[in-house]
Amino acid sequence: MNENLLGITAGVLTSISMIPQLIKVIRKKDVKDISLVMLLILISGLSLWVWYGIKKDELPIILSNSFAVLVNLSLLGCYILYKKS
Amino acid sequence: MNENLLGITAGVLTSISMIPQLIKVIRKKDVKDISLVMLLILISGLSLWVWYGIKKDELPIILSNSFAVLVNLSLLGCYILYKKS
Repeated sequence: MNENLLGITAGVLTSISMIPQLIKVIRKKDVKDISLVMLLILISGLSLWVWYGIKKDELPIILSNSFAVLVNLSLLGCYILYKKS
Repeated sequence: MNENLLGITAGVLTSISMIPQLIKVIRKKDVKDISLVMLLILISGLSLWVWYGIKKDELPIILSNSFAVLVNLSLLGCYILYKKS
């Protein structure tokens, strides 16, 4: 299989797997099952993967991890929003 | 920063972020918050990342995603084990 196609397929699969969690949190307006520390570790790690992708000039890594950062930043936003109430 | 060190740091961060979920499931013996379909999508995607890493000969990608596959296979094992009861 073409390397880029392989990387993009892998990136799409690992990225979409995080969306159900976000939908669940938005629907239930409940973040008690979410660990803030782990969310921060995950966002840091994903950001470093984006940096790694930029240095290695690999588009599949850049795109999939940027998308994952966005999903997890949304989760972090929900966490801050719903934790108050 | 050295590319390999950057990749390994990124890999360690994204990998360890999944462990608390596994610990939580093992402690609570409860998998009702886990989506089986998403677990299968994630394991497929992570396995493709390992394949991508092998083709590109990039150790940080191979190691971190292999570890993540193991953690999520353990989660899948817990799902099958605790879903019965």
